Amino acid sequence: MTVNPPDIPGVVISRLPVYARALALLRAEGREVVSSQELGQELGVTPAQIRKDLSYFGRFGKQGRGYNVGLLLDQLRTILGLDREWRLALVGVGRLGQAILGYGGFSPQGFKVVRAFDSDPARIGTAIDHLIVEDVADLEESLRNDPVDIGIVAVPGDYAQEVIDTLVASGVQSILNYAPIVSRVPAGVHLKQIDPVLELQSMTYHLKRLQDQGGQDALSSGKA
Amino acid sequence: MTVNPPDIPGVVISRLPVYARALALLRAEGREVVSSQELGQELGVTPAQIRKDLSYFGRFGKQGRGYNVGLLLDQLRTILGLDREWRLALVGVGRLGQAILGYGGFSPQGFKVVRAFDSDPARIGTAIDHLIVEDVADLEESLRNDPVDIGIVAVPGDYAQEVIDTLVASGVQSILNYAPIVSRVPAGVHLKQIDPVLELQSMTYHLKRLQDQGGQDALSSGKA
Repeated sequence: MTVNPPDIPGVVISRLPVYARALALLRAEGREVVSSQELGQELGVTPAQIRKDLSYFGRFGKQGRGYNVGLLLDQLRTILGLDREWRLALVGVGRLGQAILGYGGFSPQGFKVVRAFDSDPARIGTAIDHLIVEDVADLEESLRNDPVDIGIVAVPGDYAQEVIDTLVASGVQSILNYAPIVSRVPAGVHLKQIDPVLELQSMTYHLKRLQDQGGQDALSSGKA
Repeated sequence: MTVNPPDIPGVVISRLPVYARALALLRAEGREVVSSQELGQELGVTPAQIRKDLSYFGRFGKQGRGYNVGLLLDQLRTILGLDREWRLALVGVGRLGQAILGYGGFSPQGFKVVRAFDSDPARIGTAIDHLIVEDVADLEESLRNDPVDIGIVAVPGDYAQEVIDTLVASGVQSILNYAPIVSRVPAGVHLKQIDPVLELQSMTYHLKRLQDQGGQDALSSGKA
């Protein structure tokens, strides 16, 4: 039985790591069984959504008895490839790049930044967090000689598309982009965007409505 | 006519800033009209999806004639509240917090970090990017006296939920969290998570399939 069916919607895939993280917390607390209701409440997702998402990958849990926490977590980790180590190359070691290198969340999850590149002559050749910074001009050749799984782009917006194109030309098929640009990759390459402004801009929709409602309420009570 | 109907799915809201950004680029290039086909191609979204998303907010564009770039952009900016300035408080000014303060993308989009907090006595009272770092112990009182619209959490995971709770208690209704935790906020508070590990973990699903297929192909050709 395969657990890798071909056409899973991207939004479903992107929810699985969230489920895996919640399950890992439950396991750390010693919990053995969890219901879709409880998991949903924890994550702000409906129980039906969780059951539907998981149903893409086979049958988990028994009707009315909930999920076995450890078993479901192990299966999700296998499905997502979290049971192996992945090699990352970081391009850009300015303030943001250095914060990424110092970020404690990658390594425990099997994501190792094994290469770092920059264009600043003052940084090239220096050691940051055990990595010797390489010249970004050598990016393609360097990654062809010693490939990585994932590229992280932490350069200013003006240079980001060029770096992304070079990563793709070097054979990198997964890219995490921190630069605030609408970037393009060819079909088959997966790009995820870390973009705090887009997140903020979808929150202001709600803030604006709150403030406008506040204004309207004030107006209504003034009329009453 | 109101352009703020009540029940728009969150995923639709989160796509609008992406449309706005692409339209701003088109306007900067001097483009006056764009079709949903072209916009979709640019963004990796189907034209039908774009038309459906926009239809929540009224009628934009004429059948077969595409969208007026400047008009649609202005309307999206109004809907999202991007036509005003928003005040942000940053909690945590370590390497990540300093990268956030140094990030050039916020200010041009109307997001001003106006307050910064930390727990490190060596940082409290010092100036970072024109902000005097305040003691996080004073967070609630300080924000009650001089409110902000949005809180940014850039503290280690162990302290993040406590900071989030304090922000909520201080009246902050929108929070952008950089800490790698499954955080909880009460109903009515909007929290967005910046989480590179979750993004990476949804990419490894594809990488694993590629690598497994590579293995299977090798096996098949061996058998043939």
